[in-house]
Amino acid sequence: MDYMQEALDQAYLAQQHDEVPVGAVIVHNHTIIARSYNLVETTANPLAHAEILAIEQACVKLKTSRLLDCDLYITLEPCTMCAGAIAHARLRRIYFGAFDPKSGAIDHGVRFFNQPTCMHHPEIYGGLREQECQHLLQSFFMSKRCKF
Amino acid sequence: MDYMQEALDQAYLAQQHDEVPVGAVIVHNHTIIARSYNLVETTANPLAHAEILAIEQACVKLKTSRLLDCDLYITLEPCTMCAGAIAHARLRRIYFGAFDPKSGAIDHGVRFFNQPTCMHHPEIYGGLREQECQHLLQSFFMSKRCKF
Repeated sequence: MDYMQEALDQAYLAQQHDEVPVGAVIVHNHTIIARSYNLVETTANPLAHAEILAIEQACVKLKTSRLLDCDLYITLEPCTMCAGAIAHARLRRIYFGAFDPKSGAIDHGVRFFNQPTCMHHPEIYGGLREQECQHLLQSFFMSKRCKF
Repeated sequence: MDYMQEALDQAYLAQQHDEVPVGAVIVHNHTIIARSYNLVETTANPLAHAEILAIEQACVKLKTSRLLDCDLYITLEPCTMCAGAIAHARLRRIYFGAFDPKSGAIDHGVRFFNQPTCMHHPEIYGGLREQECQHLLQSFFMSKRCKF
């Protein structure tokens, strides 16, 4: 199964709900155990990023606070909050789509997993389906600029 | 009202529930609108830090995703995840108790609010009731070491 496509499908759902189009899935034993998309506006919760919601879903599903054998697929490079959350959840691998020079915290900004105080080091693969993930975000922001 | 005492009261509640004793309150117009303590073990949710729970409560209370006129009192220096969450929530002031050289992200680690990619800069005051906040944490970890 193409897990990044599943994450992209979630991002398209976000777009349909007029949310910044970012989607996530978490995979455990070749099965998707959590799917989510950014819900910041809908829920008026500034912390309702796709990664946060997916991690919380996966923990409920597996009845654990440690997602040691789980992999996260996310359409955008995680921000500082989400990078910290990934470390707390002990995710095994992170696959992300578009790079985010402005708010990303893996290859940009605080580069959290390269910091000596970071005690968890998932395998990280950036740039999967990068163009499609990025195009979706660019189209969204372009449409907003036209609207206002 | 001594808001850090209120945060400490939350931390003592955490201790009673066998959670790492960290407590938080959020204040708006001289009124406490959110109180919480660390619930990571109780909820099996690795993201259930006191700050995260308090921010989510406050957003529900004020029906907004931006806590522009709100101040957070927290007994321990926020971690990377919580520092990112504080920026997303646009909190006005942060008062914290104990410093956390291991996992803190304000005066240690990623020093998030000093990073050029951080777009929100709350006023920050560290070390309020530092000794009591720190003693509570040290006693907790000491008791754990004796138990195991």
